[in-house]
Amino acid sequence: MASLGAARWLLLLVAGAACGPRYTPDWPSLDARPLPAWFDQAKVGVFVHWGVFSVPAYGSEWFWWHWQGERRGDYERFMREHFPPNTTYADFASRFTARDFRPRYWAWLFEQAGARYVVLTTKHHEGFTNWGSPVSWNWNSMDTGPHRDLVGELGQALRERNIRYGLYHSLLEWFNPLYLADKKNGFKTQNFVFSKTMPELYDLVLRYKPDLVWSDGDWEGPETYWNSTSFLAWLYNDSPVKDTVVVNDRWCNNCSCHHGGYYNCADKYKPGTLPQHKWEMCTSIDKRSWGYRSNMQLNELMDESSIISELVQTVSFGGNYLLNVGPTKEGVIVPIFQERLLSLGKWLRVNGEAIYASKPWRVQMENTTIDAWYTSKGSTVYAIFLSWPEGGVLKLSSPIPSASTQVTMLGFSETLKWEKAVDKGLLIALPYVPPSVLPVPCCWTLKLEGVA
Amino acid sequence: MASLGAARWLLLLVAGAACGPRYTPDWPSLDARPLPAWFDQAKVGVFVHWGVFSVPAYGSEWFWWHWQGERRGDYERFMREHFPPNTTYADFASRFTARDFRPRYWAWLFEQAGARYVVLTTKHHEGFTNWGSPVSWNWNSMDTGPHRDLVGELGQALRERNIRYGLYHSLLEWFNPLYLADKKNGFKTQNFVFSKTMPELYDLVLRYKPDLVWSDGDWEGPETYWNSTSFLAWLYNDSPVKDTVVVNDRWCNNCSCHHGGYYNCADKYKPGTLPQHKWEMCTSIDKRSWGYRSNMQLNELMDESSIISELVQTVSFGGNYLLNVGPTKEGVIVPIFQERLLSLGKWLRVNGEAIYASKPWRVQMENTTIDAWYTSKGSTVYAIFLSWPEGGVLKLSSPIPSASTQVTMLGFSETLKWEKAVDKGLLIALPYVPPSVLPVPCCWTLKLEGVA
Amino acid sequence: MASLGAARWLLLLVAGAACGPRYTPDWPSLDARPLPAWFDQAKVGVFVHWGVFSVPAYGSEWFWWHWQGERRGDYERFMREHFPPNTTYADFASRFTARDFRPRYWAWLFEQAGARYVVLTTKHHEGFTNWGSPVSWNWNSMDTGPHRDLVGELGQALRERNIRYGLYHSLLEWFNPLYLADKKNGFKTQNFVFSKTMPELYDLVLRYKPDLVWSDGDWEGPETYWNSTSFLAWLYNDSPVKDTVVVNDRWCNNCSCHHGGYYNCADKYKPGTLPQHKWEMCTSIDKRSWGYRSNMQLNELMDESSIISELVQTVSFGGNYLLNVGPTKEGVIVPIFQERLLSLGKWLRVNGEAIYASKPWRVQMENTTIDAWYTSKGSTVYAIFLSWPEGGVLKLSSPIPSASTQVTMLGFSETLKWEKAVDKGLLIALPYVPPSVLPVPCCWTLKLEGVA
Amino acid sequence: MASLGAARWLLLLVAGAACGPRYTPDWPSLDARPLPAWFDQAKVGVFVHWGVFSVPAYGSEWFWWHWQGERRGDYERFMREHFPPNTTYADFASRFTARDFRPRYWAWLFEQAGARYVVLTTKHHEGFTNWGSPVSWNWNSMDTGPHRDLVGELGQALRERNIRYGLYHSLLEWFNPLYLADKKNGFKTQNFVFSKTMPELYDLVLRYKPDLVWSDGDWEGPETYWNSTSFLAWLYNDSPVKDTVVVNDRWCNNCSCHHGGYYNCADKYKPGTLPQHKWEMCTSIDKRSWGYRSNMQLNELMDESSIISELVQTVSFGGNYLLNVGPTKEGVIVPIFQERLLSLGKWLRVNGEAIYASKPWRVQMENTTIDAWYTSKGSTVYAIFLSWPEGGVLKLSSPIPSASTQVTMLGFSETLKWEKAVDKGLLIALPYVPPSVLPVPCCWTLKLEGVA
Repeated sequence: MASLGAARWLLLLVAGAACGPRYTPDWPSLDARPLPAWFDQAKVGVFVHWGVFSVPAYGSEWFWWHWQGERRGDYERFMREHFPPNTTYADFASRFTARDFRPRYWAWLFEQAGARYVVLTTKHHEGFTNWGSPVSWNWNSMDTGPHRDLVGELGQALRERNIRYGLYHSLLEWFNPLYLADKKNGFKTQNFVFSKTMPELYDLVLRYKPDLVWSDGDWEGPETYWNSTSFLAWLYNDSPVKDTVVVNDRWCNNCSCHHGGYYNCADKYKPGTLPQHKWEMCTSIDKRSWGYRSNMQLNELMDESSIISELVQTVSFGGNYLLNVGPTKEGVIVPIFQERLLSLGKWLRVNGEAIYASKPWRVQMENTTIDAWYTSKGSTVYAIFLSWPEGGVLKLSSPIPSASTQVTMLGFSETLKWEKAVDKGLLIALPYVPPSVLPVPCCWTLKLEGVA
Repeated sequence: MASLGAARWLLLLVAGAACGPRYTPDWPSLDARPLPAWFDQAKVGVFVHWGVFSVPAYGSEWFWWHWQGERRGDYERFMREHFPPNTTYADFASRFTARDFRPRYWAWLFEQAGARYVVLTTKHHEGFTNWGSPVSWNWNSMDTGPHRDLVGELGQALRERNIRYGLYHSLLEWFNPLYLADKKNGFKTQNFVFSKTMPELYDLVLRYKPDLVWSDGDWEGPETYWNSTSFLAWLYNDSPVKDTVVVNDRWCNNCSCHHGGYYNCADKYKPGTLPQHKWEMCTSIDKRSWGYRSNMQLNELMDESSIISELVQTVSFGGNYLLNVGPTKEGVIVPIFQERLLSLGKWLRVNGEAIYASKPWRVQMENTTIDAWYTSKGSTVYAIFLSWPEGGVLKLSSPIPSASTQVTMLGFSETLKWEKAVDKGLLIALPYVPPSVLPVPCCWTLKLEGVA
Repeated sequence: MASLGAARWLLLLVAGAACGPRYTPDWPSLDARPLPAWFDQAKVGVFVHWGVFSVPAYGSEWFWWHWQGERRGDYERFMREHFPPNTTYADFASRFTARDFRPRYWAWLFEQAGARYVVLTTKHHEGFTNWGSPVSWNWNSMDTGPHRDLVGELGQALRERNIRYGLYHSLLEWFNPLYLADKKNGFKTQNFVFSKTMPELYDLVLRYKPDLVWSDGDWEGPETYWNSTSFLAWLYNDSPVKDTVVVNDRWCNNCSCHHGGYYNCADKYKPGTLPQHKWEMCTSIDKRSWGYRSNMQLNELMDESSIISELVQTVSFGGNYLLNVGPTKEGVIVPIFQERLLSLGKWLRVNGEAIYASKPWRVQMENTTIDAWYTSKGSTVYAIFLSWPEGGVLKLSSPIPSASTQVTMLGFSETLKWEKAVDKGLLIALPYVPPSVLPVPCCWTLKLEGVA
Repeated sequence: MASLGAARWLLLLVAGAACGPRYTPDWPSLDARPLPAWFDQAKVGVFVHWGVFSVPAYGSEWFWWHWQGERRGDYERFMREHFPPNTTYADFASRFTARDFRPRYWAWLFEQAGARYVVLTTKHHEGFTNWGSPVSWNWNSMDTGPHRDLVGELGQALRERNIRYGLYHSLLEWFNPLYLADKKNGFKTQNFVFSKTMPELYDLVLRYKPDLVWSDGDWEGPETYWNSTSFLAWLYNDSPVKDTVVVNDRWCNNCSCHHGGYYNCADKYKPGTLPQHKWEMCTSIDKRSWGYRSNMQLNELMDESSIISELVQTVSFGGNYLLNVGPTKEGVIVPIFQERLLSLGKWLRVNGEAIYASKPWRVQMENTTIDAWYTSKGSTVYAIFLSWPEGGVLKLSSPIPSASTQVTMLGFSETLKWEKAVDKGLLIALPYVPPSVLPVPCCWTLKLEGVA
């Protein structure tokens, strides 16, 4: 298909669709759009940070900034000790080979992990585009490094498995001289926005027809600079994905947690109570980085129990859970990440009934000694407990049992015995589970029917 | 300390110690030497394959041979697609940086894994030495790549934790022209042996005073070529480690499984019945390679249960278990390997009593439905079962119970109820184990006292 | 000083100067501008082709085009045999080190060569800018490779020696996607021109205040595309160099030899008769390339005699002579080029009187057996003969001698004997010149006073 | 043909030829051998320094020593500024591509230069061998870098043009650990000599059958260390080149100028009077280096006149003249070297009669104002004068003219007029030479017949 020239996208702004109520480029109008239903039902997604930062694979995907923006000593030392003098960040691009990138294996793995959507960094703050952007000459994955359309290849593989596809895109580019010039001008000029950001966003949407646009890099400039509302109005009114596309909230320096589609708020954001607005928690298996680090240690990674319990709490609070992995420069998702993802999937195959398409219940968690979290689906209530009680009896205080109350544990066929607790709630006799049978060492789901 | 010149080692052959019975350079004499006791007690070791092959990190540590010895198409394609024309294997050496090699962390990790000894490749068939060998100019870890004494640094860190240190050494070098010339001469000339192999073996022993010399690469040449018996006689009579050093059995083309110290026989060798001679099973977490592969997949790796059950069977048959990891060219033991090692160590902290310093029992395993293996220590018998019986009751047919018989499970304080089985053996009621408490999903040890 | 943002140059178009007759952006007006006098007087210039093409140093500075535009077999083979697969042209940039670039030495050398102006490629068709262009991110000499302002450094060194400075600039960029898109649109869109070409031309003029803008790469697009007349109108009316700047004729696909400042017409253009319009012959010591070639052979280079005789003929026809050298990627002007330049300078130190600030004479050359060319200065006529007549007597047919006619040879103090020829012109007795004294084996100048 | 194993050369020492007087391995015997006649007749040779040092191409071929032996600041800075940390000298080998090495072109060029023999560095002090030496694993031109037999290829091309072939070979290797160990032992051990030096010298002679062995690197060790006399006895008695081979004098720390074949004495040695022993002056066009330097300047090179006048003086004193060029790592002899060589050849085509196969005359030079040097052939005397006398008349004081004396100038057919000088010698009227005809600006030869 034809790529989008820097100027032709302008035409798209004026070309309009004919009928139906249209969104206007302002937050009151845009914020009023209902979120397409698929997103809330999906609940589990995989986030992929991949780019030139995967080459040094040191520190984090903010390598370039720490090195040359902040001039941090450890990064300068790293470069001095391991690379020739005068090595530039741009020099890394040719080593970004994607040699072992097999998109169909990725898609299989993400499906096994239970992910219903996947979000890929199409362009991080470094400005390198993982597709052949015509306005990112010599700084994209077709011209150098992989010589492949990473965004397109992954998209196709995901579609084959009916996994939704989200495109991460950074509005700003740390070192793009056009951006720096606009910034110096107090964001009064918009050369960067109109020659880089906008052409690329339109190009991404038209080429890849994403289900989700995951915006980032918004924090320095105001909405008037980024042209966000105009883009979103087009996206909602006239784009080929206008009926299904979902976006997040990072569209300007005051947008996050206030405007856009669903909310991310901060990275790894955890609300304390049930939020009013649909949200998503993004987090990373590697606790120190989103991009690959070649020297990560096991104790810097989330273990299986932490991942599952974090997912449970997120969903209980109405959120989606977007779990990140950083592939190597060759395109390998290393075994430890495979294992974490497959463990999550194994758990979801048993317990997914309490997660996918669930809704928050009237109570989110037990405040008692036991660590249990609720979700619901119609009149069914799910209580997911994170550790197994010593005596084999679990007390849930919040559900109000009735004569018709029935309790089962997902993954086991028999119904469980229960009795009314003295004060309130139920006491449930957990089943005998031979250790060899247990899939993962965390988090079992009780399904409660006929409770209030 | 002074390095050993190519000629000075000759003096060592004639310089002799004064007193005591001395070994003569022939197999009857050498094979009669009792194995130093530490080795049989140690039971668990970690094997480390690290070298220039860690740079391509493709296929296996036999990369060079597959590529240029056999000229396999997949290796030729790999080189053609990813490296400049005329790239030689030698060119990889400069990328073997060992940048993140922290020997104290390795030693900590191996101790946590429960290893009582560690064996490092000081020189694989490629001929590259991981120390500054004076007869391996420009092809050793001091002159190029790491610019560090890898053998020495790891040794020092292991000593600090009282872990025994073994040195892997390959007799042959695939492409060394001196070796090839000797080979062409039907192994009638020994230029290679006397200018490379012997000087290096002596140098290794004198510099690093190893507890174990793990020989390999013996299969092409006869004993008369390799000069093995002379070396071993010196090692046993006059070397600084003569009282403690252990060696394996790969010293000539007919030696394996017949001569030397303990036996390795083949790689990953598993005997079907209890061997008469002390042996060691060496195996690798990565089932396809001993050296690091950058694109290994989770399903190509041994999982925790496989590792533990293989260890149990090996020890039950009187063997030691040497489990291999391949560090990256930077010196990182990647997280999936860390996790496997730490899981093994977690299991050994509970069950090590049945492993370390144990002896085979009169029966090695149950032939019944349940998969259980025996070890012993004095009159105590340990039965290690690999899967948990559905009903919670385990039957052991071989032990003959008595009135004083007492059964406990390692990791649990209470004694277990048991009764005589109808035919023979015991029926044991396993304890109730809350799922959250279980450390690993495999292999529990029953300690039987007062059985026959 | 501040760099020029992509948009700010627009302001420059409307900001106007106050007084004096102004040029309008059309050829009749622009072509009417008198050429600043310094250019015709300078006569001798040095051309420098330096860029990323100096890294492969193979074939010519059109390397990229031959390789990836035309896909010529020899270039594909060169890449296949000497570089890793997937190597891109962009990868060469980091090896463009300019490590030995000493601009003051260059300036000294060019002065010694007798050059009165120097023209440097600030950006060839590859698009790489030899200064920190803000609209050429990651593709300029500050961001990568030299990490130096090559244009600025050379400029400063030339100014110190009062050598005029010309900036070569290519309008087109072979592989710039913006250019390719405009081209595909039949040059109806001008995204490339307004986001790259124009900002850079304005930036160059404002930063470096050149004496000469040597335009190139014009042949594909019409004037309406390149925006040339607007730029030239600004350059002549409002730029800081409006009074002194000279330009050539490569500003659109029908401009060459017709519009602009002086004419280059084709590369190495040689007119057959005296042109009516001021012109310049550009040529290169390496007859096969303007950029450096690492494997050039002596017989592919112009020798001293060819250079001098070509200069003589050019000046005789009213042209300037711009002689090219291609420095290495390290910034070395190799000795053979140094020698050619110094030989030229040595000749000019003796014969420059007949070259600098000279005018064509009424006759340009002798059509007789002898190869001699004329220049003039006021009433003085200079006859430069290219080979020494066997008998030591030179016949010039065109000058009409008189009683007061006096003949000398530049570099020799005595006046020469002459007599009227039988038919017309003079016979001149050349001096005895001991061989050791002769500076170069070509081209001696007779100064004729009192001839008509 | 089969290469020579490290041990097999020992056999060669004992295998002896049958008849004729034999040289014994001591200097009185070896020094008594007459020099094969071809060498003195050849007079002009080209020396070629090529090796891994051609890759940094900085400073000189002693790069490695200055950098890591002496740790000179400028070399350390050069490495720090232009290469990655931990770069070793060995890393340069893979960039020694010899990509443009065309041995037949070299041979043509050397023939054009008038060379009758060519000496190539087969191994300089760095130890890298330009052929596939079996005792220099991974450190030779077959295993890495060129992947070609440089010594063999050049040899074949020279043979096709009947040019004699000399092999430069360094006895010592700066950083070879075997050599360093021997040195540390006060040269009492000879491990290096017998495992490296000797096998390689024998291999070179047997493989390539050289006409000349140009030894170097002798100065640190005594004759008893280097085993030189044994090698030379074999070379003179039993080698395949025993009748024709010539050697120089660098065979031990007291050998130079005293023992061996012809004498080199020091590099660029110039005697003040006629030596008694055949000698050779070796010198280099690049006055600062024998190996290629990428940043050499014209004023650091010998010009044509210096080369020719140095040759003349050398031959007049009975010496041979060996002029050095350093090819690039790609195998290019750069144009400035081509030009110097071709100029020399052009001169020799006219004046070679006075050079080749000439003998010193009874007087070597004129001590008068004029700079003239004599050679002779039978009764003919050649006087070569370096600068042309102003008045065109040359005075030679030493020859005693007779009635039959006849004087011509090489390159000119007529005989010249002469007369007896008032005091002694002759006054010769030089011919009129039109400047265009003169090939080079130096050194003309008068041929005197019938003088005493």
